Amino acid sequence: MAEIGATVRGGCNRQALSDQDKAGRDLFTAWGVAAGCTVTVDEIGNIFLRRAGRYPEAPPVLIGSHLDTQATGGRFDGVYGVLAGLEVIRTLADHGLQSNRTIEVASWTNEEGCRFAPAMLGSGVVAGTYDLAFAYSRTDKEGRSVGEELARIGYLGKAPARARPFRAMFEAHIEQGPILERTATTIGAVTGIQGAYWFDVSLHGESCHAGPTPMEARRDPWRAACPIIEGVFALAQAHAPWGRATIGDIKVSPGSRNTVPERLIVSVDLRHPERGVLQSMVADFRELARLQAARHRIDLAIEQIWHMPPTTFDPELVALIDRSAAELGFTHAKIVSGAGHDSLHTAQFAPTAMIFVPCSGGLSHNEAESATAADLAAGADVLLQSVLAVANEGI
Amino acid sequence: MAEIGATVRGGCNRQALSDQDKAGRDLFTAWGVAAGCTVTVDEIGNIFLRRAGRYPEAPPVLIGSHLDTQATGGRFDGVYGVLAGLEVIRTLADHGLQSNRTIEVASWTNEEGCRFAPAMLGSGVVAGTYDLAFAYSRTDKEGRSVGEELARIGYLGKAPARARPFRAMFEAHIEQGPILERTATTIGAVTGIQGAYWFDVSLHGESCHAGPTPMEARRDPWRAACPIIEGVFALAQAHAPWGRATIGDIKVSPGSRNTVPERLIVSVDLRHPERGVLQSMVADFRELARLQAARHRIDLAIEQIWHMPPTTFDPELVALIDRSAAELGFTHAKIVSGAGHDSLHTAQFAPTAMIFVPCSGGLSHNEAESATAADLAAGADVLLQSVLAVANEGI
Repeated sequence: MAEIGATVRGGCNRQALSDQDKAGRDLFTAWGVAAGCTVTVDEIGNIFLRRAGRYPEAPPVLIGSHLDTQATGGRFDGVYGVLAGLEVIRTLADHGLQSNRTIEVASWTNEEGCRFAPAMLGSGVVAGTYDLAFAYSRTDKEGRSVGEELARIGYLGKAPARARPFRAMFEAHIEQGPILERTATTIGAVTGIQGAYWFDVSLHGESCHAGPTPMEARRDPWRAACPIIEGVFALAQAHAPWGRATIGDIKVSPGSRNTVPERLIVSVDLRHPERGVLQSMVADFRELARLQAARHRIDLAIEQIWHMPPTTFDPELVALIDRSAAELGFTHAKIVSGAGHDSLHTAQFAPTAMIFVPCSGGLSHNEAESATAADLAAGADVLLQSVLAVANEGI
Repeated sequence: MAEIGATVRGGCNRQALSDQDKAGRDLFTAWGVAAGCTVTVDEIGNIFLRRAGRYPEAPPVLIGSHLDTQATGGRFDGVYGVLAGLEVIRTLADHGLQSNRTIEVASWTNEEGCRFAPAMLGSGVVAGTYDLAFAYSRTDKEGRSVGEELARIGYLGKAPARARPFRAMFEAHIEQGPILERTATTIGAVTGIQGAYWFDVSLHGESCHAGPTPMEARRDPWRAACPIIEGVFALAQAHAPWGRATIGDIKVSPGSRNTVPERLIVSVDLRHPERGVLQSMVADFRELARLQAARHRIDLAIEQIWHMPPTTFDPELVALIDRSAAELGFTHAKIVSGAGHDSLHTAQFAPTAMIFVPCSGGLSHNEAESATAADLAAGADVLLQSVLAVANEGI
């Protein structure tokens, strides 16, 4: 799969609904058919391989992730989860085993969002977060729409892009962070996805010449900005190990070397997996900003740019993954996902959990993304074990 | 004069060597001729009105500033000093008085530097800071050179652009800062011009995703930047009242909302009028940056972008201005200039001092720049008194 859209630096460029994505989809469905699956494509291009179980009317077990990549993406993000699902199917086929429940492997459309915003579009349509007309109307930089491109590459399917009953949904994925690697842990049983808030903090002071104006006569927005930035870091640390605070960008106006800035706009990204804790971090951040702005006579405006509520995965499935890892003899730990995944949407309509494996240096969205064959195999083993546990329960 | 290049918002756009500058120069020289002066233009377009004294061989007294403005400049910056000098000449002419020494009024070419860099070019050539060929070769955004434009507007003179002996040089100017206004002081006897250093502080950490990476696993350059910024402010305050520190701009890369920055480049402007104090501020700043970078595991590089050494004005002339203000019954105080002026260059070849008057809100380089008629008249009175004191001393 990594040969399709391979980059010279060892990564992949297989953006959603491109010719490369079409080739990846074709290969995936061909492999599915070869493994004895039927193939369904829905109205938003999500692909479902289906291996019928003994009781086809029972809600199936779903395994899924995505085959599209960032423009300078890696070989594992998303792809691993889809191919681990295919490996589960192949393993059952190789051994001539039929599960009680049907097993499906999904490849969701446009998870990355780098060509068409928003990200996680295909799973979002199925979850009802986005409606189909909205999804079709999304365009890339050249003005080509999702609807046109789905039709062009032959993946505008007819199956309704709507939620169906599923017994469980599993997604295996590289961690995209450094925790498993740093703690020498092979399997992360993911308990949920962090909620996030994005804010723009506007600090408006008074511009003046760097020379003539005495320090005490200035209304310099940096005076408020520094304690606010340090304060949000302290807030995240006060809610360790899962609290996060990031100052990704700052705009300075007028941005002249010998002029005290009139205004700073500081971007603040706050994250925590528990809704209550996240809300209290946000409240503390707002109070901190208010106090520091007032203290330094700076006008403050806080604009909320985006919010992703925390997702809590199904505790039974998380425990099952943890138990599977233990039974297979792998080191394992509970972990929280810092990034969004299709599982965020599937958790809206199906009991969902994720399996993380380590990636080198925590690196992702990067052509140098890598993971060891042993860790990837371990994750697939845990996936197989967990899927079979629910797929073979008495109906 | 303010009608030439007048802007709709009440300011002036009379940039160096433009048609407006030519018109301003023409008006100034016509006024000078009408007041009985001879006119000399030197090779870099500096204009000198000359009113001969009783002892024409004795080094003359020079009064000077500039007639060019910023693109959205005010009516007072520079212009006030030139016209206050003309007013000294006119007052002597009106009263039929001849001074012992010759009195000259200079309008220096391209003080502002907004059309042609560097600023303070005409006085800089006379001081020997810039050579003539360099000055002629400076171009504006359209590629027109100083040499071409001087010839085009008819101000490429023949007098050598070289220093001559002067007994004293006086420059009257609006303060361009808030100190006189805030302390209800009419006359500032300027003791010197602050020295300044410009630095780029590069803080190189490690970029990572805002979600998955725990706070303690990050090498976030903001961790060093905040204490460095607050530390340079504290440094300036420790050297009150004249210490200054300004963070005019910052570059964040990659500058993405959900990515911990890999690198920050922080601009630092440090000022103080005393060379020794300024050097120690710079040394303390470097040590502060080194310590904070090391503490937070951030790679540090400090690049010096520019340096202007402090200028100390002639103590005798400063005392004379102070005394003149007292004798005329004006409130007065010693003050330091935070901005550069042509006097910075003339101090290299002539005993120099400046007279500041208040400007509204400390505003300058702004179309709203203003000063009261009473303050401007007071400054011109102090200028006259001070000029006559040296121009009439026994030869």
